[in-house]
Amino acid sequence: MSEQNRRLVLAQRPTGMVDDTIVRLETEDAPEAKTGQAVVRVTHLSIDPTIRTWMDDAPGYLPPIEIGAVVRSGGLGTVVSSQNDDFPVGATVFGMLGWQDYALLDGTPGEGQVVPDGMDPTAVLSVFGVTGMTAYFGLLDIGEPKEGATVVVSGAAGATGSVVGQIAKIKGAANVVGIAGSDEKCAWLVDELGFDAAINYKTENVAKRLHELCPEGIDIYFDNVGGEILDAALGQLAMKGRVVCCGAISAYNDREASPGLQNYFTLITKRARMEGFLILDYVDRFGEAQGELFGWVLEGKLKHAVHVVEGLEHAPDGLNLLFTGGNTGKVIVEL
Amino acid sequence: MSEQNRRLVLAQRPTGMVDDTIVRLETEDAPEAKTGQAVVRVTHLSIDPTIRTWMDDAPGYLPPIEIGAVVRSGGLGTVVSSQNDDFPVGATVFGMLGWQDYALLDGTPGEGQVVPDGMDPTAVLSVFGVTGMTAYFGLLDIGEPKEGATVVVSGAAGATGSVVGQIAKIKGAANVVGIAGSDEKCAWLVDELGFDAAINYKTENVAKRLHELCPEGIDIYFDNVGGEILDAALGQLAMKGRVVCCGAISAYNDREASPGLQNYFTLITKRARMEGFLILDYVDRFGEAQGELFGWVLEGKLKHAVHVVEGLEHAPDGLNLLFTGGNTGKVIVEL
Repeated sequence: MSEQNRRLVLAQRPTGMVDDTIVRLETEDAPEAKTGQAVVRVTHLSIDPTIRTWMDDAPGYLPPIEIGAVVRSGGLGTVVSSQNDDFPVGATVFGMLGWQDYALLDGTPGEGQVVPDGMDPTAVLSVFGVTGMTAYFGLLDIGEPKEGATVVVSGAAGATGSVVGQIAKIKGAANVVGIAGSDEKCAWLVDELGFDAAINYKTENVAKRLHELCPEGIDIYFDNVGGEILDAALGQLAMKGRVVCCGAISAYNDREASPGLQNYFTLITKRARMEGFLILDYVDRFGEAQGELFGWVLEGKLKHAVHVVEGLEHAPDGLNLLFTGGNTGKVIVEL
Repeated sequence: MSEQNRRLVLAQRPTGMVDDTIVRLETEDAPEAKTGQAVVRVTHLSIDPTIRTWMDDAPGYLPPIEIGAVVRSGGLGTVVSSQNDDFPVGATVFGMLGWQDYALLDGTPGEGQVVPDGMDPTAVLSVFGVTGMTAYFGLLDIGEPKEGATVVVSGAAGATGSVVGQIAKIKGAANVVGIAGSDEKCAWLVDELGFDAAINYKTENVAKRLHELCPEGIDIYFDNVGGEILDAALGQLAMKGRVVCCGAISAYNDREASPGLQNYFTLITKRARMEGFLILDYVDRFGEAQGELFGWVLEGKLKHAVHVVEGLEHAPDGLNLLFTGGNTGKVIVEL
C-alpha cells in the first residue's frame, strides 16, 4: 500500500488549550494488514472532553497518551484491507482509531465493533455511541430518577448533557433545568429539546437561579463541568439528592485554578450522595441502552445535534471547542 | 418549687470559638410540672460538634438555635417532679435537655427516653448514645465495609472516630488508619484501640502518609473533619471507594477560609461515592445497633474514652475542646 497516513501525535503535554505545539502532524506510510489484522480508513472522529484528560501525565482510568504517540480518540472508519474475518473489507467499524487517516486493528478483543449498514455515522458517534451510553447509564443507574423529579444538567447543550435532559423528561421528570453558556443554547434547550428552563451561566447567577427554578431542591444534578457550578448545585440539593459526577470540564485545562468545592457539607444535612461512573463498567449493557435509545429516536422523543469540523488537521480545534463552549451538541471531525 | 434554674442562652451568633459574649448565663425560677409534664434535673450534657452548627443562622437539618434561647444539647438527667406517667420521679432520662440545670418535658413524642437503671451515664452518652449510633450506621450502612477492607478515619481520637475504627476492625477490616492531632492520640489509637496505624496531621503530610499506608487505596474514608484532610483522602481512594460524610469540623468555625475540595475528580476515575447521613434517619434501628454495641463492650472488643468537664458554666469550654483537639474521646459536662 503506497497510501500515506497523516497522524496527529502528542508532542508535549498541554497546560491549557491544545495547539500545534502540543499536537504535531506527522506523515508516514499507511499500515498494511498482516495475518489477523485489518486496516481502517478513518472517516469520522468522536471529539470528547476525556481526550484532554488523557493528554495529562496524571493517573486516570486509562494510561496517559505517551509523548510521540497518536492522540487516542474514538472514531468510525471503513475497512480497506483485511486479513481478519471479523472486519471484512467495506465494513464500517467503531473503535479507538485515533487522530489519523488509517488505523491498524491487530485482532485485540474489543478494539473495534462493526456497525450495521445504513446507520447515520453521526448518530453512531453520538446518541448510540459513547455519548448516549454516558447519558443513559449516568442518569438512570447513578441518578435513579423518580417520576416527578427535579433534574439539573450542566454542559446541557453539549453532546451528553442534551441527551441527559431529554431522557429525564422521557422518564417522567417534572422539572428539567439545563445550564449552558449562551442565550442561543438556552433557547435551543427549551424550545427544541423540551427542557423546562435553562440558565446562562455566563450572564446569570447560577446559585440564585437554581434556588428560584428548583424551590423544592434538586433531586438529581448531572455534572459535566465541576467547579463553581457544581458547588452551586450542591448548595441547592433536595433531601436524598444525587450528584452524578460525569465530567469536570471546567478543571481539565487548569486544575490548580479551580476554586474548589465548599458546599459539600450539604451532603450531610440533606443525606445526599455524589457518585462518579465510567461507561467502561457498562459495556455488557450497551445493547439494552441502545435498544431503548433507538426507540426514542424513532418516536421523535430524542433529538441530537452535531457540530461537524472538517479535516483531520482541525481535530485540535474541535477539542478546544468543548472548552470554549463553541459547540452545540456532539463535536465530530469528518475526514 | 423555689429552685433556681441556671441556663446558658445564645446571646449572639458566633464567628469562631464560643465564649461568654456568645453564650450568656441567666438564672430564673426552675420550671414546675403541670399536667402531662415532667421536670428533669440535668446531670450530664453530651458535647457534640453539631451544637456549633446549630448556633449559625444557616440552613441545616434542625432549625438554628434562636437568639435568647437555651443552647440545644443532648443530655441525661433525673426526673424530680412529674405529672406524666412516662417519666416517673427518679427515672433517668436522655433527651435534648439543653445547657441548663432543669429541663421541662412537656409530653411531645420523642422528646425523652427513659434509660434502664444501672447504666453508666458516660456510656449512655457515648457508645450507646448518639456517638455510637453515628459510628455504627455511618460505617456499616453508608461505608459498607467488606472483609479485608482498608478504612481511614479522621477525627480518630474523637468520640465517633474512635468507635468507627474499632467497629471496622471487629467487622474484619485488614487495615485501619486513624488521623488525629497529636502523637499521644496516635499512640492511643494504635496501642489501646487496635488501629493498624495513625497519622498526626499536625506534623505529617497526610496525603503522602495515606499513599504510604494505603498503597492499594482507601476503600472507606469516614470523614469527621472535611477540608484538606478530606481532599487528601479523596486523592487516595480505591476503585469503588466510599467516603462517609459525617462531619466537617474543620469548617464549622470558619467556613469561608476552608480551601475547598479539589480532588473530587477522583470520584469519576475511581467510580467512587461520597455520601452524607444523619442518625435522625436511623432512630427505628437504634435497638439493633445498641444490642450489637453492648455485646462488643461486654466482650472487651470495644473501648470508649470520656473527657469530663465539670460544671454547667464550662459547657462552652467543652464545646471549644472539639475544635482545638483538646479532648480524647467523648466530651461530657457533669453538672
